[in-house]
Amino acid sequence: MLFKEIIKKKRDGFELSEEEIRETVKKYVSEEIPDYQMAALLMAIYFKGMTDRETLFLTDAMLKSGETVNINIDGTIVDKHSTGGIGDKVSFVIAPVLAELGLPAVLLSGRALGFTGGTADKMESTGMKVTLNKKEIEDVVKKFGFSISCQTREIAPADRKIYALRDATSTVESIPLIVSSILSKKLCINTDGIVFDVKVGSGAFMKKMEDAEKLAEGLVNVSKLYGKKAGAAITEMNQPLGRTAGNAIEIEESLNALSGDIANDLLEVVTTLVGIIFKITKKGTFKEGKEKAENIILSGKALPRFCEWIEYLGGTTKLPKGKNKICVKSKNEGYITKIDGETLGFLIVEMGGGRKKKEDKIDYTVGLRFFKKIGSYVKKGETIGEIIFNSGDETAFVKKFLSAFKIEKEKREKPELIKKIIY
Amino acid sequence: MLFKEIIKKKRDGFELSEEEIRETVKKYVSEEIPDYQMAALLMAIYFKGMTDRETLFLTDAMLKSGETVNINIDGTIVDKHSTGGIGDKVSFVIAPVLAELGLPAVLLSGRALGFTGGTADKMESTGMKVTLNKKEIEDVVKKFGFSISCQTREIAPADRKIYALRDATSTVESIPLIVSSILSKKLCINTDGIVFDVKVGSGAFMKKMEDAEKLAEGLVNVSKLYGKKAGAAITEMNQPLGRTAGNAIEIEESLNALSGDIANDLLEVVTTLVGIIFKITKKGTFKEGKEKAENIILSGKALPRFCEWIEYLGGTTKLPKGKNKICVKSKNEGYITKIDGETLGFLIVEMGGGRKKKEDKIDYTVGLRFFKKIGSYVKKGETIGEIIFNSGDETAFVKKFLSAFKIEKEKREKPELIKKIIY
Repeated sequence: MLFKEIIKKKRDGFELSEEEIRETVKKYVSEEIPDYQMAALLMAIYFKGMTDRETLFLTDAMLKSGETVNINIDGTIVDKHSTGGIGDKVSFVIAPVLAELGLPAVLLSGRALGFTGGTADKMESTGMKVTLNKKEIEDVVKKFGFSISCQTREIAPADRKIYALRDATSTVESIPLIVSSILSKKLCINTDGIVFDVKVGSGAFMKKMEDAEKLAEGLVNVSKLYGKKAGAAITEMNQPLGRTAGNAIEIEESLNALSGDIANDLLEVVTTLVGIIFKITKKGTFKEGKEKAENIILSGKALPRFCEWIEYLGGTTKLPKGKNKICVKSKNEGYITKIDGETLGFLIVEMGGGRKKKEDKIDYTVGLRFFKKIGSYVKKGETIGEIIFNSGDETAFVKKFLSAFKIEKEKREKPELIKKIIY
Repeated sequence: MLFKEIIKKKRDGFELSEEEIRETVKKYVSEEIPDYQMAALLMAIYFKGMTDRETLFLTDAMLKSGETVNINIDGTIVDKHSTGGIGDKVSFVIAPVLAELGLPAVLLSGRALGFTGGTADKMESTGMKVTLNKKEIEDVVKKFGFSISCQTREIAPADRKIYALRDATSTVESIPLIVSSILSKKLCINTDGIVFDVKVGSGAFMKKMEDAEKLAEGLVNVSKLYGKKAGAAITEMNQPLGRTAGNAIEIEESLNALSGDIANDLLEVVTTLVGIIFKITKKGTFKEGKEKAENIILSGKALPRFCEWIEYLGGTTKLPKGKNKICVKSKNEGYITKIDGETLGFLIVEMGGGRKKKEDKIDYTVGLRFFKKIGSYVKKGETIGEIIFNSGDETAFVKKFLSAFKIEKEKREKPELIKKIIY
């Protein structure tokens, strides 16, 4: 079949066959299919979608374009994936907690691009080694019961090539393409179960609940078709998660959280995800998982293994801090009704804590602290947060920080943090 | 604006501005916009369409990527364009008739590709010169009252580049893209009025009436926005037009037609189009145009100027003929209910009378004759047509010819030839 016939088939709304999808990925990677034909197919997929079966084959073809990782450990291996948001340090809290519960957690994480932070970058702020090979991952999991490491370039190269094309052709925002891109980097590892934290709101990639639901369902359905146990939570991201956003500062917050001093929203997200993992892996009920996770966190039991893990990989828990600190004071009185994560994310990027382009170096020491969240009543002149930075225009930083906060006379109903659970 | 933002704008269904469209064409021609981004935009246009205003700007930008032709002649200059079908020799009959009626006709025509023939190829079968420059066109129109010549490569190069990409990316079948492609090669010449013959049916590019209507309306509306007088007829193409299909054989039929010996369907199409031209140019009523055209054709008055025109440009009216001739006899008895033009078109290509790819040379002497058309009752063994060829598998040719004919016991209502008139 000529490739333009495959484009036409999708354009006209038909389901592509397994062979057609595998050939497409194979020939695109080997450059037998040119970018311009692939771009047309991607736009046709944007409009016509893909069935879960098609998404499964696309995922599998992209996954098989690279290395698969077969971790040799006993037990039910679990994974957690977040679609990304501001202040999202869930991985650092959940992985040691799962280890404590006897569920080996093996997470492969990415780096920051755009306004959301990257788990691997946050880890690097400690000075620890973040890229591990299969043997090193096995060794670390055996020692600490969990491993978080950076995706290597050998994982799903087809996804990298396709993602770059999607970025240049405005075809990023397609649910099946997002699902296959995420899963090609997740299902390549022999985990037994996976839970997805799909963020929705102004500080997330998915702004609308409807889209977040489609994404969560796609991730869960295709993972199940692939033979994994899977579940998802759709969680609110209309304000940063927890008390800080940045790199080193989020590791610091994670250390506090694991000692029991944890923000309510972070606790709620972590324990909900553990509950889902309990349910899907049949380790126990959702409620049991949630309660056990909460007990471990509040008791501080999982903290030592987290600290030892950082140190074992060459990092320190005495984290570097930016030179300067400004307190941000409210200019109005009233209730905080919104904190725009995207604005804050870009503020961090501006201060050097994120990447505008792939090659950018990150300043791990800059960051933000939030003393007040949605629902808080603030007076004029009251400190609502803190900016930690090294250089730059501090007046502009404060202005941007304040612009993310909406303060209104009337108290509004607090948005629900856990919007939906799927398993 | 980044080009991917323009793709996104169209993808999300917004109208592009004049500047955005002009920049797109300019930068695509100069290769500042790569093929893969243009391919994504074309697929977005396929799904989201374009307004008449957008189509106008796209047409004008493509047109201005090349030469415009300013013919210096007195009178109301008119043009006729057909979307192409099997046996379509309307140009050869209508142009001398319009000349006879005092309306200088200046037609720029293309070559064959795929299953439909090309006017320029049919002309070349006489040995005449088909590519004329502006001065030569003026000279020919002054002498004969009409000119038909081949589009030069200087006309709308942007359309050529975009068309090649559309062909490779399955984005050909988009009404605004078809409209702008046709009009960029038509509006570049200073005609006053133009009539479009939009063919619909199995032997045409547009298979469905709904699509043909959209195309006809697009062509007329955008031409009018451009400041031309314009009208269209949607004509039936569920069987070949007239009595023959091929190259030299269609010139021969045109000579007969202009002498008054004309097939009914060909007469009906030509006179209808002249009626529309009368109406849009205010030369007279539709009915007056139609009747005057019919009188001229049946009286044979326009024949001499057609023969002299061919000879003036170095051609002959003693046309070359293929060596072999087979009569095709019906294998069934009944009423002819359909004659598939696409099958017959590809039979001509197989015999050497058309092009599979641009570089192919054409054998002008092969062709088909049709003795029976839709509605005719045929007996088993009765001759329904004739195949003229030079070499090849004659049994396969006969088989293919017969496969285009549907013969049924019940007589069906004859389809209307002129399905819609727009002005």
